[in-house]
Amino acid sequence: MAKQKIEVCYSPALFPYYENPNAVVVVTDVLRASSAIVSAFMNGVERIIPVGTLEEARDYKNRGYMVAAERDGIVRDFADFGNSPYNFTPERVGGKQIVYSTTNGTNAIQLASSGSQVLIGAYLNINALAEYIKGSGKDLLVLCAGWKNKFNLEDTLFAGALSELVLKDHDYGTICDATLGAMDLYDAAKGDMMGYIKKVAQRHRLKANNLDDVIAYCHEFDTTDLIPVLEENYLVPLRDIK
Amino acid sequence: MAKQKIEVCYSPALFPYYENPNAVVVVTDVLRASSAIVSAFMNGVERIIPVGTLEEARDYKNRGYMVAAERDGIVRDFADFGNSPYNFTPERVGGKQIVYSTTNGTNAIQLASSGSQVLIGAYLNINALAEYIKGSGKDLLVLCAGWKNKFNLEDTLFAGALSELVLKDHDYGTICDATLGAMDLYDAAKGDMMGYIKKVAQRHRLKANNLDDVIAYCHEFDTTDLIPVLEENYLVPLRDIK
Repeated sequence: MAKQKIEVCYSPALFPYYENPNAVVVVTDVLRASSAIVSAFMNGVERIIPVGTLEEARDYKNRGYMVAAERDGIVRDFADFGNSPYNFTPERVGGKQIVYSTTNGTNAIQLASSGSQVLIGAYLNINALAEYIKGSGKDLLVLCAGWKNKFNLEDTLFAGALSELVLKDHDYGTICDATLGAMDLYDAAKGDMMGYIKKVAQRHRLKANNLDDVIAYCHEFDTTDLIPVLEENYLVPLRDIK
Repeated sequence: MAKQKIEVCYSPALFPYYENPNAVVVVTDVLRASSAIVSAFMNGVERIIPVGTLEEARDYKNRGYMVAAERDGIVRDFADFGNSPYNFTPERVGGKQIVYSTTNGTNAIQLASSGSQVLIGAYLNINALAEYIKGSGKDLLVLCAGWKNKFNLEDTLFAGALSELVLKDHDYGTICDATLGAMDLYDAAKGDMMGYIKKVAQRHRLKANNLDDVIAYCHEFDTTDLIPVLEENYLVPLRDIK
């Protein structure tokens, strides 16, 4: 019998049914918020303050903060820049605090913040995440940001990939149908991930706005071992709070 | 460009994000409520009144109705019988009205009743359903009953199977990630459905209560062309309201 369990929650709207005080919560929004957040820490950002509403983001902007904010893929006029990982360059974010608000990802982070430890997950840091979780002795709950509370495939595939890595540790097990489904979908996709991703709804949305240049980048494995973690109301690298 | 769209909703809790007044809603709870309902109509039941709460079910019982009611697989003491399709025999239900309340399925039916036409779907009537939908000129929304608002695999596989059948009509298309995911999971499972179903959480729950004798039966295709439809607050065969 496994000591620790894995569950996957496909939508922020389902989080109340999966909430687990014994779990590390990994929030993922592969296209693009969680990939952008991991990239920002790779490029030296000091802190990221995720905010749910545009009103909060605008308020921070008026108080002098640098703000990244988008809705439906489009950067908002008051913001310094939008949601592409390519925006979070060392020149722009190195040593800075950034306020960040997106359609799905930052709301999911705020939602998860009610209890457990909250980490930000992307392919870019997937093996570092898996190693940390296995060392934690905690359950794993993957919270997919989805699309406006609907299921999305790209976050589900990531959840499947992360679950497979953590399940290599036999202290972990799962009887969660959503986790089993995510792993089966990842197995169906992983042989040709870029081919599979062509059909997902978010790829069509990004392409319609000429924003699909980031898709391959957001599916690169292990470009970093940095893990963003939520501390109070802001994200910092996990190493900074150890 | 397809004229009609297909969407799949994995949980009653997500229904508000998928609700579509132009859709036929197919509610499914393969293990076991929707399979039991289809079986009851095959065996001559006149009407089924789905009720959400046990209090409502008990109230009907006190008013002299025959009541099928269970929670977590266990028949309730005040009820005449529980949730196995095998309970709905011709001797017991033929020509009768039955009140029915289950953990997930009957709540999902009530939830879906707010607008569109609501049909009950199971493998037992899957091709009849697909033919009816293709003739309707309406969108298709499959509402999976899930398990206490969590995702479940067996309803998702059915949603994938039904979507594949309806998509053979080129007037239908989908850009819904949940539909694409359901079809990919069905494709992964269909070569050995009984092998695949061994891992799903509901099979473990049924087995723990010696109720897993119905699993093969609930995955038989096309034993009937009867389609239960919601009319006001009760289910009748679709043919009766044409």
